[in-house]
Amino acid sequence: MSARTAATLLFALPLFALAADPLPSWNQGPAKKSIIEFVETVTTPDSKGFVQPEARIAVFDNDGTLWSEQPGYFEELFAFDEIKRMAPQHPEWKDQQPFKAVLENDHKALAESGMEGLLKIFMTTHAGLTTDEFRDNVQRWLSSARHPTSGKPYTEMVYQPMLEVLAYLRSQGFKPYIVSGGDTGFMRVFAEEVYGIPPEHVIGSTFVTEYQVKDGKPSILRTAKIAHNDDGPGKPVSIDSVIGRRPILAFGNSDGDLQMLQWTAAGDGPRLMGLVHHTDAKREWAYDKDSKIGRLDKALDQAKQQDWTIVDMASQWRRIYPFETSANEQQQ
Amino acid sequence: MSARTAATLLFALPLFALAADPLPSWNQGPAKKSIIEFVETVTTPDSKGFVQPEARIAVFDNDGTLWSEQPGYFEELFAFDEIKRMAPQHPEWKDQQPFKAVLENDHKALAESGMEGLLKIFMTTHAGLTTDEFRDNVQRWLSSARHPTSGKPYTEMVYQPMLEVLAYLRSQGFKPYIVSGGDTGFMRVFAEEVYGIPPEHVIGSTFVTEYQVKDGKPSILRTAKIAHNDDGPGKPVSIDSVIGRRPILAFGNSDGDLQMLQWTAAGDGPRLMGLVHHTDAKREWAYDKDSKIGRLDKALDQAKQQDWTIVDMASQWRRIYPFETSANEQQQ
Repeated sequence: MSARTAATLLFALPLFALAADPLPSWNQGPAKKSIIEFVETVTTPDSKGFVQPEARIAVFDNDGTLWSEQPGYFEELFAFDEIKRMAPQHPEWKDQQPFKAVLENDHKALAESGMEGLLKIFMTTHAGLTTDEFRDNVQRWLSSARHPTSGKPYTEMVYQPMLEVLAYLRSQGFKPYIVSGGDTGFMRVFAEEVYGIPPEHVIGSTFVTEYQVKDGKPSILRTAKIAHNDDGPGKPVSIDSVIGRRPILAFGNSDGDLQMLQWTAAGDGPRLMGLVHHTDAKREWAYDKDSKIGRLDKALDQAKQQDWTIVDMASQWRRIYPFETSANEQQQ
Repeated sequence: MSARTAATLLFALPLFALAADPLPSWNQGPAKKSIIEFVETVTTPDSKGFVQPEARIAVFDNDGTLWSEQPGYFEELFAFDEIKRMAPQHPEWKDQQPFKAVLENDHKALAESGMEGLLKIFMTTHAGLTTDEFRDNVQRWLSSARHPTSGKPYTEMVYQPMLEVLAYLRSQGFKPYIVSGGDTGFMRVFAEEVYGIPPEHVIGSTFVTEYQVKDGKPSILRTAKIAHNDDGPGKPVSIDSVIGRRPILAFGNSDGDLQMLQWTAAGDGPRLMGLVHHTDAKREWAYDKDSKIGRLDKALDQAKQQDWTIVDMASQWRRIYPFETSANEQQQ
């Protein structure tokens, strides 16, 4: 190859990259169109809606938006598995609720223990240990646990179309953040490897932590006190506290994301507010207004009223998970 | 100029940039040497101590480390000025401490009101308003207020040598963060313009905030409850909570920075722990063990024991402020 040919190829590459479809797992439809149009508007230097790269803040809920949340929030399933792992050191749990229910897979008794029971399970598995110990526990679980219906590792239950959105946004100078109800320390264990989102861009619920020094070695203890609940109105609050800039793009899937979407929408200039609508009982799950997990009711109404981007999973997504071999083509 | 000459110049530029002194306001001395040696170690790809760019987290205290903190913390002086600005709407303050003391510049009465009085002043000026309103108040003050002894805008009372360290680190792939006792929202108003540190890299003390919607317009209210005190052990706690990575470089100037320095030092691989030691009564201020503001006692002892980088301001800094026209050359 002559030097001249090589140079021509080199210069041709960026054009080629631009021409390639950045969202191949999305069907040609209104959702894909609105995402691409938005990104082109804010990244075109002579566009009226141009946004400087440093202000291209994009926020994503995690459960139900980047990965599945059925048959239960994955972090809850982690907590149940941790109780089972810890049980040999706690023989008293055999007769104590809510632990007994978890150990016996007694869903009825567990449901009866209510929020109080669930909180007890969370405090037992998420608090009273150092941040390093907690990270190790999450890492161990992620590497061995399997999703109850698919049999896949939890980190494979992520949405291929959303991975493509994250990569596309990054390629266009955006900084994608996770802003989600899950524990920050839990999500940080896999967010970088799975989503390409580094620890400092993961915002979630937090426990009050304490700096301690033992035998000259400092560590950070997770106490049994919740510092921040990153759900609903807690989301704009954490966005303001941690990022200090208003996002120009926000993606969620439930009423817990409504305030984050409102906060994003209320800024000046072009905005994209997106909702993943779980409508695909065959390939994933179908649920909205009446679901206990990821209830989508008020946010769906507001999205319709204000013309936000509603992603009808069944029709808009060609493929759901990266491990799927067949794809669902739809004509719009 | 021929195309060939232009190309040669172009290729020569990076080498030229490398050869230039990245820290011209530092005298040739042990502090400058340790900073440059550390940066070269962690950025040289074949060095044993090489650190990937994404892990090059550097944290800096603000008051007394990046800008002066005498004759009082600048944010405290802001709070006093705000009380004066708000006084016409509060005629009752004429007879109420600690407000009366502030309005009459009565330092003795103010000191007598103690921490409780100071807290009342902070709550009055920092809480009960939206984050946007607070930002506007800080902006207005910064643009008009002058430092009581130098007569300069507060944002010019920054240390030129530290601005050079920040720029040098950034040029070498580091992400410098502020981790400081000041209010996060206060520091974000000027950190980007003055230090080149964007809002999302500013970590400080915070109030509990609340999302509220009035007439369809959402805002974030700063309530009168402290959420996080970013001082002492609060610093490693916020570093872990917000960044989620351990810094490899930390710079402070007082005992309030000790835990942040310890936390940084306790990581694996090369580390730089730095302390600005205020030893220059002529050009800035001289204070350490006995100072009420920025007391440096235990941290200085530990720095000496563990061979941290102590920056003796009088001997190591050629120039203190950007506005200085003469420079203090010292032979080491």
